[in-house]
Amino acid sequence: MNRSALRGSILTFTGDPFFEDPRDCCTFIEDGLLIMKDGLIESVGPYEERAAEGLDPAYYPQAIICPGFIDGHLHFPQIQMIGAYGEQLIEWLNTYTFVAEQDYADPGHARRAAGVFLAELLRNGTTTAAVYCTVHPQSAEAFFEASSALNTRMIAGKVLMDRNAPEALLDTAESGYEDSRRLLEKWHRHGRQLYAVTPRFAPTSSPEQLRAAARLWREHPGSYLQSHLSENRGELAWVQELFPESRRYLEVYEKFGLLGPRSAYGHCIHLEEEDFADFRQSGAAMVHCPTSNLFLGSGFFKLFEARRQDRPVKVALGTDVGGGTSFSILRTLNEAYKTARMLGARLNAFQGFYLATRGGAEALDLADRIGSLAPGCEADLIVLDLKATPLMEFRLDFAKTLAEKLFVLMTIGDDRAVKATYVAGKKVHSRD
Amino acid sequence: MNRSALRGSILTFTGDPFFEDPRDCCTFIEDGLLIMKDGLIESVGPYEERAAEGLDPAYYPQAIICPGFIDGHLHFPQIQMIGAYGEQLIEWLNTYTFVAEQDYADPGHARRAAGVFLAELLRNGTTTAAVYCTVHPQSAEAFFEASSALNTRMIAGKVLMDRNAPEALLDTAESGYEDSRRLLEKWHRHGRQLYAVTPRFAPTSSPEQLRAAARLWREHPGSYLQSHLSENRGELAWVQELFPESRRYLEVYEKFGLLGPRSAYGHCIHLEEEDFADFRQSGAAMVHCPTSNLFLGSGFFKLFEARRQDRPVKVALGTDVGGGTSFSILRTLNEAYKTARMLGARLNAFQGFYLATRGGAEALDLADRIGSLAPGCEADLIVLDLKATPLMEFRLDFAKTLAEKLFVLMTIGDDRAVKATYVAGKKVHSRD
Repeated sequence: MNRSALRGSILTFTGDPFFEDPRDCCTFIEDGLLIMKDGLIESVGPYEERAAEGLDPAYYPQAIICPGFIDGHLHFPQIQMIGAYGEQLIEWLNTYTFVAEQDYADPGHARRAAGVFLAELLRNGTTTAAVYCTVHPQSAEAFFEASSALNTRMIAGKVLMDRNAPEALLDTAESGYEDSRRLLEKWHRHGRQLYAVTPRFAPTSSPEQLRAAARLWREHPGSYLQSHLSENRGELAWVQELFPESRRYLEVYEKFGLLGPRSAYGHCIHLEEEDFADFRQSGAAMVHCPTSNLFLGSGFFKLFEARRQDRPVKVALGTDVGGGTSFSILRTLNEAYKTARMLGARLNAFQGFYLATRGGAEALDLADRIGSLAPGCEADLIVLDLKATPLMEFRLDFAKTLAEKLFVLMTIGDDRAVKATYVAGKKVHSRD
Repeated sequence: MNRSALRGSILTFTGDPFFEDPRDCCTFIEDGLLIMKDGLIESVGPYEERAAEGLDPAYYPQAIICPGFIDGHLHFPQIQMIGAYGEQLIEWLNTYTFVAEQDYADPGHARRAAGVFLAELLRNGTTTAAVYCTVHPQSAEAFFEASSALNTRMIAGKVLMDRNAPEALLDTAESGYEDSRRLLEKWHRHGRQLYAVTPRFAPTSSPEQLRAAARLWREHPGSYLQSHLSENRGELAWVQELFPESRRYLEVYEKFGLLGPRSAYGHCIHLEEEDFADFRQSGAAMVHCPTSNLFLGSGFFKLFEARRQDRPVKVALGTDVGGGTSFSILRTLNEAYKTARMLGARLNAFQGFYLATRGGAEALDLADRIGSLAPGCEADLIVLDLKATPLMEFRLDFAKTLAEKLFVLMTIGDDRAVKATYVAGKKVHSRD
């Protein structure tokens, strides 16, 4: 029996602050005690000496303990080309991405990048992510091996592309299916690893490949599907050309049976009401990647349209590294705030932290395991230092309420605010 | 005679990369030697053992030495409310700014904030800034005292407001003139300090005050004038109401004689061609504050319209702390890139670094003294560490050209990339 404990302020959500008063859906314990046992959370409550006895809790004053962040969309091979200059989506893929991804035919390179990538996630407090590898099965092998060694709960998959990309990055409908099936059977639910069937997006998969992807996904209940939707206007026009029988981009994925619970679509920018309704009805999730959308000039995700009370769509946050330029979910929240602002809306701190934790877990159908600090949940959690930089230290003196403190964290915080990251009860990153 | 030297890669501009090929307007010395003497730059050239003899140069490998950054617009009292939630300009001023600024009646508070503020600037590599204090003369006193002690070249002024703000923050046309005059006579050109007559913006100054501000500015050749222009649509409507005789916002300032060389206007978002032409003709400068403009949902500055080759307007970058959420000019460049992207344009790294250094100096009429690394210039310079974080360290291995390296710095760099800051030849900040 492996028990340990943390002491400090504890924040977790029990409901949805898009629709409920934070007082009704958010638990905040000023001086709390969280006990972990065998990788799970055993109990959460106010600090009591008696309960802590014999556990010698790690004490974090001036900090907030909250669930590990969830990143619903990013590309591990793109870590080497994060912050690439000057293009919109399609040119950016051709100029940078499809060049970088060819390096991942080399398992050694893939292993090195996977190690740096996972370390960076943990440094930023992200304990679960939905990750695109490259077309090469060895890239997914490298990723899962590294994640498995860390015991992180990750969702990932080999990319499927059988057209409109360089020869060296193409599979076929059949080889893509077979390679993915082998990876899925090996890694899905192997420890904490989860597999996502990963057709990059409609333009780089033939109808045959999309059909095969759907088949594989449906054959393995509980597995994931991830792809991109409606990021960029040039992409929209291209999809229209390739799939003239579908009026809306989303119809392409629908037609092939690629929409449903445990499917997650990145970006979702240029949508109409029918699209939102289809997401709601199918149980599919949208992943909001604001940094990337601003960096590539893609547009503004309509978060408050997605989260409309009469037909709320599940939404996770995504950094979309390397289209996004930061691994930090805190910085991503800053960008999400700005994106909402440009549409005349306001993302408050409770909504922000909800999206980053429990909301992301709900979108990925993992809310019973991660995203909350509650007994029985997996002990993936982070310690956010309210005084991580000289500026934060000065600023926090003037923040009175929890809402203000959280907003300062999501506005001027970055990886330095993550003082410690725990995965399944074990400290895997410590800032100092 | 006080001589010292630095060794490392040296970057400086000799012209304008908006209109010239970088090869023709940018000097980059891979292994350079920069010698400083009595606060000025004595020489810049390739490293030679003979030249360095006896100087024991501080050696910075894996780094770029460039001029200190120039921040053309920010508010020192707002450091305590940086990252305040949820409002557009006018409500934001009333809800947060005008509350925070009242604290600066207390000289002790002003001194403490000025110290933190200047330290934060230097930590971020900013060696010159144009700074708004509060309406209280003691706030400007505190700022200049602190800047003077550091020997930083700063431009600042007490804010002028005689209407439409809380009573405790109002001066009068006459008292504002007199207080400003006293401050100007005491601090302008006192060591490296420079004074800016600072009417906050048209809505909070009566016509009498704007007239008095222009008089004071004109009476002291070489002094500065700073204000805000056309940040927000609500502000535009308000100005229209207060000054119905002016069709354009800018006409208000023009009418009172507030446009000319050494005047700098923050934001300048909602402009028409006549406005750009007036700026060009008058020699006034625009200050581009992209972080703030996104954070407050103000809009997108038309940088490439301002920098049109047939009538280029002078442009500096500004963080606009606390409407902006970062003191980092590198992060501000990331936001400037995104802002350009949303308008379909591309800000390249040479243009970015030019705006942050020589371009800012030109906008503030200081290009003969700062913003370049050239003999005779003041030795304000920074050392940018290309491998400041684990992510940068990995990423830089894949950046081949100088353009790529600079772009990575401006995309994923922050205060940590500033390894050292030198002011007038003296190291005033060291990261490690």
